Amino acid sequence: MPKRVDHRRRRHQITDAVCRITVKGGLAAATFREVASEAGVSVRLVQYYFGTKDELLLATQRHVAERATARSLQMIAAADDTPRAGLRALLGSFIPTDDASRENMVMFVALHTAALVDPILAREETREVPDALHRAVRTRLEQAELRQGVDADMEATVLVSAVPGLAQSVLDDMITPERAFEVLDYALDRALA
Amino acid sequence: MPKRVDHRRRRHQITDAVCRITVKGGLAAATFREVASEAGVSVRLVQYYFGTKDELLLATQRHVAERATARSLQMIAAADDTPRAGLRALLGSFIPTDDASRENMVMFVALHTAALVDPILAREETREVPDALHRAVRTRLEQAELRQGVDADMEATVLVSAVPGLAQSVLDDMITPERAFEVLDYALDRALA
Repeated sequence: MPKRVDHRRRRHQITDAVCRITVKGGLAAATFREVASEAGVSVRLVQYYFGTKDELLLATQRHVAERATARSLQMIAAADDTPRAGLRALLGSFIPTDDASRENMVMFVALHTAALVDPILAREETREVPDALHRAVRTRLEQAELRQGVDADMEATVLVSAVPGLAQSVLDDMITPERAFEVLDYALDRALA
Repeated sequence: MPKRVDHRRRRHQITDAVCRITVKGGLAAATFREVASEAGVSVRLVQYYFGTKDELLLATQRHVAERATARSLQMIAAADDTPRAGLRALLGSFIPTDDASRENMVMFVALHTAALVDPILAREETREVPDALHRAVRTRLEQAELRQGVDADMEATVLVSAVPGLAQSVLDDMITPERAFEVLDYALDRALA
């Protein structure tokens, strides 16, 4: 199905352009005109694929979630097969360590902020990423040997809440990625026996 | 000095309008025209006081930080005089429990996101709130009896990172404020002896 593949690539070409513009000037800068220009396509083509700005942002959100999931899976596959190493890879995959992961975290932050005031971005499916992350962390904690007083569900909430904060501190240049991983290691040491 | 007081009130009247508009439609909706209309003043007056959109956002950021600090101090004053109660009040003051604290957290999120791509908002003084919060939490942890393995500096980073995440989950209606306080209590129980 060569035509389908082309559509998918075109759509990604456009959502990639949204990401590049947002990193430089925020989501508000990602107008149809700017996105078309950055993607090297016509405004009409952007309209043909996405119709409205909300649809474009929703598609971008899915694209960013796919990339984040791919990075998580890759880091988990490269990690040792222990609950601790898996948790470190899964949670650590959100800490920006290169341009691609930095862009992904800026997009998460920008889209999450937009979702606070945009009911279309805030619909159920956009909660799937944080929900899935919480479940994955909780399951891994349940499989591990936990320290006394550690509750897998509560601990998962603390860890999943803390990681975006650490990631944003890295984006803000308040801490280094290395420091963020040190804090993550500390938090895991405090949970795992 | 009645004239000075009036200036201060006028400025707050305008930055309050920025907050109300942002909660409804995001920071991008807070144009000079919209802000003037919402504040019931002329566009010229907004320009007279703030000059540029960046100056307006910076003043809004300071105003929001002042309100957040006032809420923290109020909650700390109402809490028991123990390190645990103080930490709970300090960190818990960021969890939205009413319209005013909800608006404050939306503003923090929106301004923090804007600061990622706006060097004026990202300047040193805007890091003062997270830095001051980290120092305050670390100091209180140092004064408390800690569980074995707890490092005051690392633990402060985990707590200060996790609280905005919890607050945002409340804003997103993913968890209730009560649940956010349960998680905070859990995190404090895990740190304090």
